[in-house]
Parts: sequence; structure tokens; C-alpha cells
Amino acid sequence: MKSSSPKIIIIGGVAAGPAAAAKAKRINPRAEVVLFEQGEHISYGSCAMPYFIGDVIPEAEKLIHFTPASFEKEKGCPVRIFHRAEAIWPHRRRVVMRNLQTDQIAEYTYDALILATGARARVPDPAWFRYDNVFAVRSLSDSMRIKNYLASRRPSTAVIIGGGFIGMEMAEALRRHAMHVTVLHKSEWPMDSLELSGRRVVADELKRQGVKFEGNITSPEVVAEGQTVRAVISGNARFDADVVIIATGFEPNTDLAREAKIRCGASGGIIVDHHLKTNADRIWAAGACTEFKNALINKPMYLPLANIANKMGWIAGENAAGGFAEFPPVVRNTAVKIFDLEVASVGLDAASASAHGLSVIEETIMAHSRVRAYPGAKPVMITLLADKHSKRLIGANLIAEEGAALRANVLALAIQQKMTLRQIADMQMMYTPPFAPVWDPILVAANKMMKGL
Amino acid sequence: MKSSSPKIIIIGGVAAGPAAAAKAKRINPRAEVVLFEQGEHISYGSCAMPYFIGDVIPEAEKLIHFTPASFEKEKGCPVRIFHRAEAIWPHRRRVVMRNLQTDQIAEYTYDALILATGARARVPDPAWFRYDNVFAVRSLSDSMRIKNYLASRRPSTAVIIGGGFIGMEMAEALRRHAMHVTVLHKSEWPMDSLELSGRRVVADELKRQGVKFEGNITSPEVVAEGQTVRAVISGNARFDADVVIIATGFEPNTDLAREAKIRCGASGGIIVDHHLKTNADRIWAAGACTEFKNALINKPMYLPLANIANKMGWIAGENAAGGFAEFPPVVRNTAVKIFDLEVASVGLDAASASAHGLSVIEETIMAHSRVRAYPGAKPVMITLLADKHSKRLIGANLIAEEGAALRANVLALAIQQKMTLRQIADMQMMYTPPFAPVWDPILVAANKMMKGL
Repeated sequence: MKSSSPKIIIIGGVAAGPAAAAKAKRINPRAEVVLFEQGEHISYGSCAMPYFIGDVIPEAEKLIHFTPASFEKEKGCPVRIFHRAEAIWPHRRRVVMRNLQTDQIAEYTYDALILATGARARVPDPAWFRYDNVFAVRSLSDSMRIKNYLASRRPSTAVIIGGGFIGMEMAEALRRHAMHVTVLHKSEWPMDSLELSGRRVVADELKRQGVKFEGNITSPEVVAEGQTVRAVISGNARFDADVVIIATGFEPNTDLAREAKIRCGASGGIIVDHHLKTNADRIWAAGACTEFKNALINKPMYLPLANIANKMGWIAGENAAGGFAEFPPVVRNTAVKIFDLEVASVGLDAASASAHGLSVIEETIMAHSRVRAYPGAKPVMITLLADKHSKRLIGANLIAEEGAALRANVLALAIQQKMTLRQIADMQMMYTPPFAPVWDPILVAANKMMKGL
Repeated sequence: MKSSSPKIIIIGGVAAGPAAAAKAKRINPRAEVVLFEQGEHISYGSCAMPYFIGDVIPEAEKLIHFTPASFEKEKGCPVRIFHRAEAIWPHRRRVVMRNLQTDQIAEYTYDALILATGARARVPDPAWFRYDNVFAVRSLSDSMRIKNYLASRRPSTAVIIGGGFIGMEMAEALRRHAMHVTVLHKSEWPMDSLELSGRRVVADELKRQGVKFEGNITSPEVVAEGQTVRAVISGNARFDADVVIIATGFEPNTDLAREAKIRCGASGGIIVDHHLKTNADRIWAAGACTEFKNALINKPMYLPLANIANKMGWIAGENAAGGFAEFPPVVRNTAVKIFDLEVASVGLDAASASAHGLSVIEETIMAHSRVRAYPGAKPVMITLLADKHSKRLIGANLIAEEGAALRANVLALAIQQKMTLRQIADMQMMYTPPFAPVWDPILVAANKMMKGL
């Protein structure tokens, strides 16, 4: 580092960016750390947005960890909102920023640059957003717009395009507003990240909760009147819609990086090494704009999750400030609340594992979350995926009204530790009637799978 | 094995015994497997007994997995209840059994013998049990007697001697009967298995729930009128009691083994190797009558838990029937519901760890069970214990109204895998607002502890 008061610039203010800024300043308090964000808000819990929209968390303020002012005050890093990065010039160590309120452009030099540009909604057709009732669930501003629309227009019918995590969470949010909800999904069953056993359970739950699920919808089109979409059509099917939610996934926001010749990978995300350095001198990247190493297979992984982004922010911030921290390979560990169900999936799914040459064996069991006679005990479904040759666990789904999500952590750790089914069956799990049965569902699953070998 | 239809005798029918019998018969269907039990019931959930007494689980039948008849029918093993083993003659491969209903004695030969004699209540003075209102919580029959006494006599005041797991569970059970409950305990704070941070929280919870806790009670005495105890006294203090519950822990039931020269260890439990063989030819032992290997320190461990007993039963049953299964070293992983709290403790406590030469460092944090803004989020207290030199986790306490017990499983596995604080901080934990915050309490604790190093 040339200067003892280096200038560290961070582009992107939602999850990885603020984590990186705060960490860099903590590592080197003499550094000048500036955080740029193109939107209005920084440092908020984007995963909580469906709960804000559904009024489970009524106030937007509760999603915001720091305002620009409180961040600047507490962390010592100036924040520039409504600033969009227009270009990076790595050889001159400069970024070009546009102030979206004044439309003025300015250049800033840096000693270290961290890209935390996040993800954007993947959409069937970006032109749809010109309609006043088509929404993505990407930023807090998006969420506020949806909530305002629901409050002012009182729409009664919603079509959600996409049956993944956000689609499921939005279905619940809109049902809480007593709307008629239809989910359109590209494949036959919802939640592509689960095995078929679990996807059927999710489909049943949607039905039970009054959500219409339509699978195998491949090329949805909108029917509009003026500025407003009236329906979504696919083939001969027509789904009336007062509101359309686009929940077809996210893709890394990397236009800026690509134009600066920063290398991106097969997933589309920025390629980083285990110190989160990009291929460009003095430029690091963190969060949902990157791809990273999968702990299980030698293939980069794209997984836009806030906890991963926060962690990467720490690492990138530390390293940009002169440290040498490492970001370890990742075992997927995700959960989502789908109405009354906890739905967790960890490790690889069967299709990816097979595609990478593993001989996948699968076993599904039903057990109980607590001692069966104890009030509140619920059935727990666990699907384990293992490699036939090594007998190692490679993935799992856990679905239950209680006790699925936290149990998933144990299996994620078992996968990360490369444990065999035998070793998993030998784990010492907690037992007491109010919290777990004498044979924990995880042990039941591991024992059952071993019997079948 | 001399015979192709070997005779396998199992002494003890609560947890390890039935597990051993069923497994032995499954491994060798031609074996003649007989299960002896001195009491009336076999194969029941003894950990659920406080919930039966407290009417959380109203029917005793729900605690019983198998009756003697259903066990015999489903597992193919004859069951002899009300049979007490009087002697083992290892050199002649014989056991002497007394039929407690007829008082007749008979000898039985065996090719393999499994001791699953369990634990008995440790009591200040066994003579107290001659009083009609002094009870232990050891067997299902004990529990039925307590429940009958509560129903028929409607006592209003209870003294529980012992502030450990059973003492806590019984305090809740008796409060559910609207009784005045006093817990007398030998040390200053309840729950010796926890660190002081947690013990204070438990003491507060008892107070909040209207339970009187009296610490430093070392030599309690009873004051009786005729067949009935009226009070427990200690020094100058007197605690009126319509009912006295003895909950001062368990000790292994090994008189039979000792008389047959089967070796017992420092804890009092039968010494077994990793195949659960005793020192005596063709005799295995399993469950709460044994001591076993601690995964963390080279010291035998006594931990009378039903899940460990079941697991040991499987191993002993398999090996007695000709197999060669191994029982792995154990990491303590226990949890107890104390009124509104989940209280979990895993690994070593600080005192045992120090006694074994480890340099113990300790850190306590408060975090939240879910995203804080999400309804139902509760504070989670975690105390981590690590070895100063290796930086490995050696123990932990977790206390919360939700999300403590299942999280303990992750830390138990981390201890078993000999993970360092750095590796724990790098674990990929599940995040989604309804189930866990972006930094899981476990990560908060590991990160905090690392900062302090």
C-alpha cells in the first residue's frame, strides 16, 4: 500500500459493501473508506423484504441496520447514496461516479477498490417493468413500491412468475393480504433446489394454503391495457393479474466489472481467489456479484445469500485494508419458510452431483421433531444424498413444521467435514422429549440409508 | 460361538436391554434371546416421566414403546418381567434368576450375556423411602406412584432435593399441579453441569416461575410423623413438605456385576471396551450401568442417558450375536427444558477441563434466535469454552426460550470434529429471517471469542 492513509472505495451498499467498509476501517482506522450506493438505502436485510411486504414486520425501518448517517457516524466511513459507478479504470486506479440526483460525474482515485455490486433480478423481459403493476423484489425501494401499491390499489389477484425461494415467500406475503395468488413456474414442481420428494410436499402445502400452482410455464407473456398488465398468458392459458411479481431468480450485477476487463466465470459472477481478489490490480469483490468455490465439487458456485455476502464483505474489507484473510469454500446451506413449513436444503442436489460424476444414492425418511407423545411433535421428512463409493453425505433436504431448519446446520457441517453415513449415524445428538426424540431424525435417516447399502 | 442357535440372555428391560435384544435377534434370527426385567414395565421412555407426572403427556401408555407381549410378538424375544438376577456365574455361563412373584429361583445357561441393569437413584439415605411421601423418579412404577399420590392426596407443598436435570423437570411438573415447590441443592446455584453464567439464568427462571431455590444445602434430614415426612431440615432451616422428591442423581446399578468379579471403573460403572465387552468371558454391558470413553479427555465418563443406552444396546446386541460393531467415544450433548427455557450443555465443563490440564478460556455472548425484527425472536445466550493453546472448542452452554437445544447439536459435532474457533467461525450456517439471523448466534460467539484472543 502506497499511503499510510489509503483510500478504499466500495461500490455497493446493501450487504457485502457495508460489511467491507466497516471491516476495512476497523483494520486500518487511518484509511479513508468511502461507500457508494446507487439506491436510496444502505445496509438493510433484503431477505426480510417479503415479511415487510406481508406485514409480518410492518415497519421498513426495522429492516434497516444503518442509515447513511448512522453508518458514517458509527463506522467512520462516509456514504454516498444515489451514486452510480459508470466506469472503473484499473490502470489509473480511478472510478467514475455519477450523482443520480444532480446527474454530475466525478472521478475518484483509490488505493483499493471493492466491488459489492450485488445481484439483479433475472427477468423474462426487462420491458415489463414499464408497467405500473409489475414488480421485482430486489431492493428495499422495490418492496416499498409493492407495499404502497397494495395499500393504495387494493389489488385482489396476483401472479408470481417463479416458484423458487422468493416466489414462495411472496406467495405467503400476498396471501396475508388475502389476495388470490397464482405461482407460474418453469418446471413441473416448485423449488428446483429440492429433490422430487420435497417438491411434492411443497406443492401440497401451496394447495393447502390456497395458492394455485401452475408448472411447466416456459414462455409467459403479458397482456396489458395502457400502463397496466391485466393478465399473464402462456400457450392457451390465461392468468388474470392485478399485480405481477417477477421472482425468476437473480444474476450477478457485473456490467461494470466486465467493461473494466475484470474476469467473470461460467456462472456470470466475478471470479475471485480465496482472498477475494479479482484479476485486476488492487480490486477485490464480495457478495452476490461474485462466484466462489464449492466445498464439494471443483466447480464455481453462484449463491446470492446475505450471510455469504456479509462474510465475504469482512474478508474483502480486511484484505483491501492490508490483511490476508481467507474466504473458505462454501457448502450450500439454505432454508426458507413456505407457509407452515421449514424447508431446508444443504450441499449438492442430486442432479448437480450426478452431473459431476458422483454416483448418487438417495433415501427419504419420516420421523418426528420431538418425542412423539410430547405435545407439538411434528413429522420431519429428511432426504439424504450420498456418494455410493465413498459413502459420504453430499446433500440433504429437511422439511417439517418445526425442527428442520436448525437441524440442517448439523448436516451442512457433516458435509463440510466430509463425514460418511457411518460417522453421521454415530454422532452424539441431543435428546430430551420436548426438543428431540431418542433417535434424532438425522440419525434415523443415516441408519436407514446404511441399512439399504 | 458353540451353538448355531445360541442362547443370549439380557438382564434389564428399560432402554439398553430391549435395544440389545431386538438387535441380537435381527443379527442372528436363530438365536434364542431372552429379556429379563425385575420391574413390571419394559421399553419405556424414562426421560418423559416428568412430563407424565406433570400431565403434559397424560397417559402412561404413551411412554411405553413395547409391552412384554408386543415385544415378544414383534421382536421374537421372550420377556420375563418381575425377574431379578441374583447371581452370575461367568465360568459356568449361568445366571440365577428370582421370580419375584413366586419367589422361585432358577438357573439359566447362556452363550452370551448382556448386562443392562441401568442406574438407580442416588439418595441421601435409602431409609427415607420407607415413608409414604418420599419418591425417586427412577422407574415408570415410581412415576405412577407419584402421580397417584398427587391425585389422591392433593398435596400442596413439595420439596425437591437436588437441583439438576430431574430436579428442574420435576419442579415444572409439580408447578403444573399448582404446588408450592422448593428445590434444595448442594451448591450455591442450580445445574452444576453449566457454567456460572447459565446457572444464574436458571436461578432467575426458577424465581420467575414461583419456585423457591435454596442453595448450599449439604446434609438434609427429614422430620416425620409416623409413615409421613412433614418437613426437610438443614441446619436451622426447615422446609415443610407434603411430598419429597429425591433428585440427587443416579449411580450405576452394578452390585450383580461386582459380585461376579466384573470390573467397574472410577465412576462406578462397568468397564467395557469399544465393543462393549466386559472383562468377563462372553459378557457384554450397555447403558446406564457402564462407563465409557470420553471423546475429549482420556478419562472414563458416566452419563446415564437414554439415547446413549439405546445406541449401546444396539452395539452390545450385535456383538453378542456374533458381530463386531464399535461404540465410538462420546461427546456430552445434553439439553433440558427448564420451564420456558431450553438449556443445553455440550462437551466438557470448565472445571473438568481444567482438572485435566487444559487451559480453559471462556466467552459469553447474547444474540437472537431469529432476525431480531421477526416476531418471536428470542435472546440466545451462548457460553463457549476453548483450549487456549489449541484454540479448539471443548465445551458450550446454550440457553434460550427457543433455538438453543437444536443449535447445541452443531457445537457437539464441532467438538467431536476437534474444530478450532476459526473453523467454527467459518461454518456455513443457515440464514433466513424466520429461523436464524444473518450471523447465527454460534458464529457471533466464535467471532467474539476470537477477537478476545
